[in-house]
Amino acid sequence: MFKPISNATIERLPLYLRFLRVLDVKGRDVVSSVELADMFEITPEQVRRDLSDVGQFGIKGVGYEVKILRRGIEKILGLQYRWSLAVIGAGEFGRAIIEFKDFPEYNFNVNAIFDVDEKLIGTKINGVKVYDFAKLNAVVERKIIDIGVITVPADRAQLVADALIDAGIKGILNFAPKKIAVPPDVHLVNADILIKMTTLTYRLSQD
Amino acid sequence: MFKPISNATIERLPLYLRFLRVLDVKGRDVVSSVELADMFEITPEQVRRDLSDVGQFGIKGVGYEVKILRRGIEKILGLQYRWSLAVIGAGEFGRAIIEFKDFPEYNFNVNAIFDVDEKLIGTKINGVKVYDFAKLNAVVERKIIDIGVITVPADRAQLVADALIDAGIKGILNFAPKKIAVPPDVHLVNADILIKMTTLTYRLSQD
Repeated sequence: MFKPISNATIERLPLYLRFLRVLDVKGRDVVSSVELADMFEITPEQVRRDLSDVGQFGIKGVGYEVKILRRGIEKILGLQYRWSLAVIGAGEFGRAIIEFKDFPEYNFNVNAIFDVDEKLIGTKINGVKVYDFAKLNAVVERKIIDIGVITVPADRAQLVADALIDAGIKGILNFAPKKIAVPPDVHLVNADILIKMTTLTYRLSQD
Repeated sequence: MFKPISNATIERLPLYLRFLRVLDVKGRDVVSSVELADMFEITPEQVRRDLSDVGQFGIKGVGYEVKILRRGIEKILGLQYRWSLAVIGAGEFGRAIIEFKDFPEYNFNVNAIFDVDEKLIGTKINGVKVYDFAKLNAVVERKIIDIGVITVPADRAQLVADALIDAGIKGILNFAPKKIAVPPDVHLVNADILIKMTTLTYRLSQD
């Protein structure tokens, strides 16, 4: 549908989007690449390259139409759809995801939680039911889950990923501090806290 | 001290390290670039480039000495030091960080928690005291905090970052879904869940 876009650009798009939504709510019609660049500490040229990659071209001397740019980025990021999430692991990280306040405005809905703890199974967290992990297949099919969010300990992450893939899920967000393997038709994004922390300690110890 | 290393390499180092620690515990003496490459689905050439960037050179036909490589990566990432963390925001994300099981083996210690909720101030989470955010300066000085972890809502993130910087903290890990500004002498790493999620929905909607 679209040409592939670099990861760096893809990661900047939600930042542009957040700002554009604020401008849109305020009733602003146009925004310049210079204003967007100032906001994110990049050059206006980088902004123009990013936005031409998503098929949006500003008008010279005027800028970008806020509504059109907003809708364009939402469409590229797939945010015109509703996304149905399952969270596997109802520990603290799982709960943080389940209660994440910004999900609704991005059309992300947590529709099922899975755990192996019998004390949790059958209870609700933030209005969402906790199911027995052993029943993953049936629940994923009934609830039409698009994305599995893994928040279990590292040593169970691959097992959980395998079960999600077996249930037909094509998108996985992995919070477990473990590299997991997935087949080529499954999209995996890692959110490894230890990698973030060690990036920081690397930089701090260079000072 | 060392030449600058690319972000991509820095983000692979903790993955190598985790595997090397397992090998070390098992008593393995050497590991080849091919074995490391297989583990992380990259080429042996990439492994050798990464490791030569951190000053470690394997022996042709033999490989890398596990203990030496492990210590080398730990040193590059600053893990020979103990890092003292403060978590600002005792919500679900904050609690997830405070209880993060892998921190101790990386020498990361949460030594203070800050919140504005009077019901939480004075209590302990995982043995760590929750302080009034208004007392940040004094507590950071007394506890010698190196890194501030921001887990407050987006609209308070910049205010919290400013307070951390004002208290002399040079390293910030930001979980709030908000781009925050820091001066050049402060290291900021962002862990934005929404960016991870939209990277995934972008890829899923390309299928």
